[in-house]
Amino acid sequence: MTLPTTTPSRPAPGPVEQGDPAGDARSFRRALGQFATGVTVVATSYEGEVVGMAANSFSAVSLDPPLVLWSIRKESSRCGAFSESGHFSVNVLADDQMDVSSLFGRPQPGQFDQAEWSPGTHGDPLVAGAIAQFECVTHDVLDGGDHVVLVGRVERFARFEGAPLLFAQGQYGVFETHPGLEAGPSAAPGTRYVDSEDSLFMSLLRAADHHMSALFQGHRQEVGVTVATGRILNRLARGPASLDVLEDDSYLGENAAEDAIAELAAQGHVVEEPGVGWTLTTSGAELRRTLRASAEQFTADQLRGIPRRDLEAAERVLSALLGRGTRSEDYS
Amino acid sequence: MTLPTTTPSRPAPGPVEQGDPAGDARSFRRALGQFATGVTVVATSYEGEVVGMAANSFSAVSLDPPLVLWSIRKESSRCGAFSESGHFSVNVLADDQMDVSSLFGRPQPGQFDQAEWSPGTHGDPLVAGAIAQFECVTHDVLDGGDHVVLVGRVERFARFEGAPLLFAQGQYGVFETHPGLEAGPSAAPGTRYVDSEDSLFMSLLRAADHHMSALFQGHRQEVGVTVATGRILNRLARGPASLDVLEDDSYLGENAAEDAIAELAAQGHVVEEPGVGWTLTTSGAELRRTLRASAEQFTADQLRGIPRRDLEAAERVLSALLGRGTRSEDYS
Repeated sequence: MTLPTTTPSRPAPGPVEQGDPAGDARSFRRALGQFATGVTVVATSYEGEVVGMAANSFSAVSLDPPLVLWSIRKESSRCGAFSESGHFSVNVLADDQMDVSSLFGRPQPGQFDQAEWSPGTHGDPLVAGAIAQFECVTHDVLDGGDHVVLVGRVERFARFEGAPLLFAQGQYGVFETHPGLEAGPSAAPGTRYVDSEDSLFMSLLRAADHHMSALFQGHRQEVGVTVATGRILNRLARGPASLDVLEDDSYLGENAAEDAIAELAAQGHVVEEPGVGWTLTTSGAELRRTLRASAEQFTADQLRGIPRRDLEAAERVLSALLGRGTRSEDYS
Repeated sequence: MTLPTTTPSRPAPGPVEQGDPAGDARSFRRALGQFATGVTVVATSYEGEVVGMAANSFSAVSLDPPLVLWSIRKESSRCGAFSESGHFSVNVLADDQMDVSSLFGRPQPGQFDQAEWSPGTHGDPLVAGAIAQFECVTHDVLDGGDHVVLVGRVERFARFEGAPLLFAQGQYGVFETHPGLEAGPSAAPGTRYVDSEDSLFMSLLRAADHHMSALFQGHRQEVGVTVATGRILNRLARGPASLDVLEDDSYLGENAAEDAIAELAAQGHVVEEPGVGWTLTTSGAELRRTLRASAEQFTADQLRGIPRRDLEAAERVLSALLGRGTRSEDYS
């Protein structure tokens, strides 16, 4: 175990949900969402048009021959184009391409007018800013239940500098080097010693951030709110919204936003009003206030006993670091 | 774009590497490694024995019927057991299970004696501490070039609290909520406003950490060292080591450690001495000193102009936060 043993990343020993997936597709989907992935835009050129969609089912299969796969819902309007065209591209998105992922997250006309791209050998879009691009010819189209599995043989690849955009547990994220690999006396108890170029201060900054994050996750679980339901509650506190707007504003995956709304509706915290959209009920507004108060309490608990002058100095230092390389700097 | 535009996550517009994968398997593998994944331990019970291995080729395929897939090298000593047994389990590892991933990263006898697990319905190991477990019957065994693709129909699933262990670009990591979703006036320029429970101080902490991380990545690229080659150099500075030891000590994936050694060897920075293992050459030792000096310079540049008393106060605050929930606290 490499994180502090008291980090409440797993407070309850038993499962949160379990069962036969045939009986509970929504819970099964949440369990599948525990496996983190990158985000790709897969694209093809078919009958004179380019079509694309965000997909996170990508998987490397074989080096020799070079094969990759991903899968598409049979009900998708794009399934025909991808199954028939005989070729496709896979673009692995960078961590600053959350907007590109959102753009391709839902079918809509003219998506490629809003993105920067160039055509590959077979005309398939290569999305600018991606950290990897694969140009494939379709090697196999396999039946995968309610999906079709597309296996591609990679003809050309390109790798670019940059960090990956992540998707897990219904939300976007960024990759951080495992804190169990940090060096230095400030590293968390139980940390593996791996020689690192990080200085003491930078190690301390990273470890403190990760530790607070983990403690806050544990705290949120105690309150009984997930990232997704919390974000939906906060968004609806600003006014009613349709499901599409909620998805866009909350930057949750389509299924995560839908599931969170369903969960909140079942608990009586939100209702859908015709012509208005989803709105908070009295109990929903109350839950949101509780949530906010409890988050404030969490911060107050963590910062308790720290002298105000130290805290202010720490804020000055963090603000200065945040400004490095971007704007006029606080200290200089 | 949601990260600060000057964040050097993509300093060069052109590809670092590109080509036909048939001509350059190692570069192709690095391009595939840009797609981030979780880490699973797949396991089966076959002819009275339990076998397992770490795999990151897992992919969700279908909800109805509930199908998942992963792939295994045909040359793997475990390929027969997995192809023949007719059932397998998939265990999605939590971010505090890097050691479990390492344990199952390489075939060795008695792996399950060193792990905590219980048998599922078909006797397949369910690994304790995983954040999701899937018990599957084999639905299909497909040819995938130098791999076999195993498609499983999920009979039972379980989901547990916890965050996922990540693997990308050859190294382990942890998931952080996308900083483009942070709230507060301290959030990085260009940040999307998503109402958040995070307090101002916690937002500032997260944003500063992520920003320093991104700047340091850019800095490392300028020096011409990757995470992997840097870690290998630092490890070898402590003494010679075999490839197996390097893999274990650097917590790099098997391929990443091998590729980094090959790259350093080609540049003349390391040599393999019979009976001793890999060692630094004079130029390797020199590169490592340059690397360290340049990392110190990076930190000095970032901290420049910050008064010593502010820095010391910030260190006290970060140390105090790191101690919360784990040991007697500095301020109280």
